[in-house]
Amino acid sequence: MERDAFLVALAERLGERGLLRDHDGMARYVSDWAGDRLGMPLAVARPATTEEVAATVRLCREHDVAMVPQGGHSGLVAGALPAAEGNELVISLERMDRVRAVDPINFTMAVDAGCILENVKQAAAEHECEFPLALGAQGSCQIGGNIATNAGGLNVLRHGMMRQLVLGLEVVLPDGRLWDGMSALHKDNRGYALKQLFLGSEGTLGIVTGAVLKLTPRATQARTALLGLPSLEAVIELYGLARRDCSDLLSAFELIPRRCLELAMEATPELRDPLDDAYPWYVLLEVSASGPLDLGAMLEYLLEQGMARELVLDGALASSEAQSRQLWQFRESMLEGQRRRGEHLRTDISVPISAIPAFVDEASRIVMAASPECEIIAYGHVGDGNLHFNILPPPAMPEADKRRHLHDLEAHLFEVLDGVGGSISAEHGIGRTKQAAYLARLSPVERELAEGIKALFDPDGLMNPGRILPPRH
Amino acid sequence: MERDAFLVALAERLGERGLLRDHDGMARYVSDWAGDRLGMPLAVARPATTEEVAATVRLCREHDVAMVPQGGHSGLVAGALPAAEGNELVISLERMDRVRAVDPINFTMAVDAGCILENVKQAAAEHECEFPLALGAQGSCQIGGNIATNAGGLNVLRHGMMRQLVLGLEVVLPDGRLWDGMSALHKDNRGYALKQLFLGSEGTLGIVTGAVLKLTPRATQARTALLGLPSLEAVIELYGLARRDCSDLLSAFELIPRRCLELAMEATPELRDPLDDAYPWYVLLEVSASGPLDLGAMLEYLLEQGMARELVLDGALASSEAQSRQLWQFRESMLEGQRRRGEHLRTDISVPISAIPAFVDEASRIVMAASPECEIIAYGHVGDGNLHFNILPPPAMPEADKRRHLHDLEAHLFEVLDGVGGSISAEHGIGRTKQAAYLARLSPVERELAEGIKALFDPDGLMNPGRILPPRH
Repeated sequence: MERDAFLVALAERLGERGLLRDHDGMARYVSDWAGDRLGMPLAVARPATTEEVAATVRLCREHDVAMVPQGGHSGLVAGALPAAEGNELVISLERMDRVRAVDPINFTMAVDAGCILENVKQAAAEHECEFPLALGAQGSCQIGGNIATNAGGLNVLRHGMMRQLVLGLEVVLPDGRLWDGMSALHKDNRGYALKQLFLGSEGTLGIVTGAVLKLTPRATQARTALLGLPSLEAVIELYGLARRDCSDLLSAFELIPRRCLELAMEATPELRDPLDDAYPWYVLLEVSASGPLDLGAMLEYLLEQGMARELVLDGALASSEAQSRQLWQFRESMLEGQRRRGEHLRTDISVPISAIPAFVDEASRIVMAASPECEIIAYGHVGDGNLHFNILPPPAMPEADKRRHLHDLEAHLFEVLDGVGGSISAEHGIGRTKQAAYLARLSPVERELAEGIKALFDPDGLMNPGRILPPRH
Repeated sequence: MERDAFLVALAERLGERGLLRDHDGMARYVSDWAGDRLGMPLAVARPATTEEVAATVRLCREHDVAMVPQGGHSGLVAGALPAAEGNELVISLERMDRVRAVDPINFTMAVDAGCILENVKQAAAEHECEFPLALGAQGSCQIGGNIATNAGGLNVLRHGMMRQLVLGLEVVLPDGRLWDGMSALHKDNRGYALKQLFLGSEGTLGIVTGAVLKLTPRATQARTALLGLPSLEAVIELYGLARRDCSDLLSAFELIPRRCLELAMEATPELRDPLDDAYPWYVLLEVSASGPLDLGAMLEYLLEQGMARELVLDGALASSEAQSRQLWQFRESMLEGQRRRGEHLRTDISVPISAIPAFVDEASRIVMAASPECEIIAYGHVGDGNLHFNILPPPAMPEADKRRHLHDLEAHLFEVLDGVGGSISAEHGIGRTKQAAYLARLSPVERELAEGIKALFDPDGLMNPGRILPPRH
């Protein structure tokens, strides 16, 4: 059999540790953090070097086998899970987990793509530097996946998305050749921005095997505050004030509705209501610095300004790291509280910051009109215009009906989103689960260019096929 | 005649103000700031709207006429100048100079591509915002040119290059269709990064007609210092210290050798030696903030640290805006001083920051061995690893020999550069003048991908042909 010949050749090339074929061994490569589960792979390749990745890709091409590059299984759009048909080879980068070099003077480090984000951050910290990408999944997600999905997270406001944090890339192309772009240069204007194309391409144009990352000085101090506000308009006005008063030192400005605080307190009973009264909206704000500045005075000035303008009604200012962690606990526990409510609609949308209040109003009105018993939970990263406008289905609804109902509500929500020039995927990407909504909004011109790029890099259509764009026939 | 029919049709579509055909009228479209001058265009089209740009492109395609999109003539690699053969149509964006909208709450503005950078900065300032791109040519260069060349300049250390400052683009493709990517979203992970491809593509993939730019809060205070240092090693160590001690508020860290200070004082006799003694290296450093922070105390702390470690030997700290302008005057006058020396080798190279001292040593040694009477002037943006390692030819050399001699020295310099993984073009781009050096260093894989992208976007090869890549035959 053709498939058998392929697997024999691959096993020979990668060795015993390099190829998994048994059902149990492959089980952990077929589901992700979100609980999506697509199917079983043909096998799981675990190359240990860039050359082994290239050899794997060449064998796949010779034998016409589709490939699914895989990182740490924390994607949220099923972009790195094998299809149900059992015909795709998973290529896991997990054995390529070496920090190649740290250069604290150049503020860079070179890493294998399979490095876990937390380990990268740790290696940077050992050199008094910081790799600023910060995600809930940082204990398991891999740098290669962060690159493939142009990961965002909690620090985008200050340090940008993954795209801003990558100086160089090493990529095995779909034909097995190596594109060596492992540059450690901060500035380089030679020719077309190939590196940028790989960033965010979700493994459809090649397999990232290494990267040069940009570091920043390690923050040595931070201050956190949780503030109560009367309205979304006040939140947006306070954001503008904070950007100015905090210079470029604002590192988080998270929007939290009252309902989320309640969900957090349900999930973590030790949490107590942080302010004396309840407010419709809260902002979790953080400033940080690597040098000797009086961040406390800076934050107090901001709060005085905010209170004088009646934007901030009350606030808790952490005066120790422990207190700061407690305030951040609300952000984490509210996610757990949501999860406990069972099936719900998760979205990851973005709008212009100035459109947030009107969008939330209009979207809430439309959704509530369509489903008066559902519950809306809209939180997010204000400075990125990134909202997780999530919906809990009516509690009394039969389980079997919930998915369909939420899907219909999503369509309503996305229509409002289209009206303000928003995005259906701010940071999670397209993968498979967002593909229909993505394609429905894609202009013919852009679709033609995107398909042209895919065909240019992957003429055989074997590299993560069917993710972002439909498979070619 | 085919050409005549084309020009008649174009004149009809663009109107009297929209098309220049007389020799004198076209003169100012054939040379740039660097004094490069390639030839005469077939004509100069001056479309006033995106639709007129598209119509012009469609006509060019119908009549098989090559196009040269043009901004404010401040390029340094002859990328936007018409060829000598007189067969290319210049498409100047100068009449498209409208600020479409400013949204200070979203920290964005939408502009026509022909807006002059200075006017964009002014429009942002009217809304208490700042568009941070800062170039010597900002009074004449256009946003479209800044986008096409991924412009850098003085503020890259703090705010990044043009790539980091563009949220949305509107582009007329080489077939005359419009790609509408005028998004004002700060975060958007939908599909391939087409926008990034246009950025830095030097007008070879399409004509940028509009953009959504990212703004920052307007800086309300700044502090400047000019410091004397004993060695390049000390400069690099001070840079690391400054990044830490100044948190993210460091906005300039310019390296100036003693010789440049002398050139500045030659060019501007009012300038007096800024420090009591002479030092081999100087750093012009600036910090800025939009909020109420004590920048003076921050800078004094840094200088204390630098002096305690004997990195800084002396320094002048501006205590007023006038004094600050005077310190910056050295940076500007040294360029004028260089220009007065007549023909010299200008380079725009980058290396890892940690490699700067060894690179400057080695490159100087090699160049001086090859040409003991020449003079090296190496200054630049330390935080970007971007050096202008320039060479004045031996004063006694006959004028006729200078160009060839400098060209030979450049080859020696670039060889040393290759050894440290440097770039022959940090911010100026490739255009025509850097093409040979670019192609000589391009891997076959990268060349194939770059040519594939060019062919995908511009199958007829009519859009700024021969820039970056050689023309197809």
